Amino acid sequence: MKLLFRFYNYYLSQDKELVKKLRPVIGFIPVRTSTFKLAFSHKSGSNDKEYAIQNNERLEYLGDAILGTIVAEYLFKKYPNANEGFLTKMRSKIVQRKALNKIGDKMELDILLNHQNHTRLSHSMLGNAVEALVGAIYLELGYEKTKQFVIRKIIRNYLDVHQLEKVDDNYKSQLLEWCQKNGQSINYKLLARYKYEKRDRFKIAVMIDGNKIATADDFNKKSAEQTASEKAMYQLGILTTE
Amino acid sequence: MKLLFRFYNYYLSQDKELVKKLRPVIGFIPVRTSTFKLAFSHKSGSNDKEYAIQNNERLEYLGDAILGTIVAEYLFKKYPNANEGFLTKMRSKIVQRKALNKIGDKMELDILLNHQNHTRLSHSMLGNAVEALVGAIYLELGYEKTKQFVIRKIIRNYLDVHQLEKVDDNYKSQLLEWCQKNGQSINYKLLARYKYEKRDRFKIAVMIDGNKIATADDFNKKSAEQTASEKAMYQLGILTTE
Repeated sequence: MKLLFRFYNYYLSQDKELVKKLRPVIGFIPVRTSTFKLAFSHKSGSNDKEYAIQNNERLEYLGDAILGTIVAEYLFKKYPNANEGFLTKMRSKIVQRKALNKIGDKMELDILLNHQNHTRLSHSMLGNAVEALVGAIYLELGYEKTKQFVIRKIIRNYLDVHQLEKVDDNYKSQLLEWCQKNGQSINYKLLARYKYEKRDRFKIAVMIDGNKIATADDFNKKSAEQTASEKAMYQLGILTTE
Repeated sequence: MKLLFRFYNYYLSQDKELVKKLRPVIGFIPVRTSTFKLAFSHKSGSNDKEYAIQNNERLEYLGDAILGTIVAEYLFKKYPNANEGFLTKMRSKIVQRKALNKIGDKMELDILLNHQNHTRLSHSMLGNAVEALVGAIYLELGYEKTKQFVIRKIIRNYLDVHQLEKVDDNYKSQLLEWCQKNGQSINYKLLARYKYEKRDRFKIAVMIDGNKIATADDFNKKSAEQTASEKAMYQLGILTTE
């Protein structure tokens, strides 16, 4: 029965052009083409709330969760001796907006987005489409097969996980470098030290030219400084989510 | 074979006491008791990084992701016409720290935590144990059965989802009330208006007695004011994560 649907979808349905473009990306012919159509339908500029139901935002919401969990599990098993902090950091490197935009680009989802939309593509639409596509595949095939898809077609194809381990996340040194280049002074100020679940906790502020740019809390000063530096880099536009 | 393991674990193993306490909570006798033992083993005050591997933090990391996805999917299907904003808000009401602590309390996970630990329990240990338990069940039974567990034993037993829809998340009016009670002035200041993905975006600050307490960005002023008010309530200690 499913085979029949697939035959129809590929050769006869009004969505056959989309299905032909989709097949090399996902590796199979979908039974429910409408879900995949939705995955690549971007919300227009319209603020009409009802319209939101018929675009890809619901699928993005679902796909974001599924993708995050698959990556979480993949890392959990790949690094049996790593602690939670390392795993969380690695996961965010993989599923952060910027990384997803790049993956969407490499998967050539722009072809599918252009097929479904008339508006000009933005980078973030590519990342959103990755999430929506994962959501659509989940609804079509369930968790285990979606996991296979994500690991084989996304992680192994487009990500160098070992390289990601080395990605510079020393935000403190990056921020220092930026300050030196721009002739601005930088220092870190301990705002508070308190107890949380019986452990010491530190609240640190990054001060640039005497202005408090960002603050962060952590169990040790070094981590709080790193997080505060990262926040400051977003604040100053040195890092962006695009 | 699994039956044999279960028989052994329940009647003979050195973990049989834990297994006897666990069974009414999870509804089955686990094959791999060590994972469940780990789920209820809290990190001591120790800062030893190696120790982190042998406590429940890795399982919490995994369980947090799995639980979030199951809840995301549950809501996605329960509210077929809801937009992404509503679904995200509902999800965070369910999986937020405070809600998980309450669920852990209702599930009487303190019995299992007390069995495994000698330290005094904190509220947040209950919420963490819910996550770690979901992680352990996932490793034992896979996604579909964990989904059944979460929906039947957690969502249907301990959560009134329709009630949650009505939970007051009008932080602006709550904060106003608090200010009036404490004789403090409150107003909202538009800090910036800019374009993001072709849409207007607003940066709003909550000012209390002339001091900037918190800021937030959103696509409309009302939402930015709500988020800024929520942040301010945490900042002022009116809302807590405990």
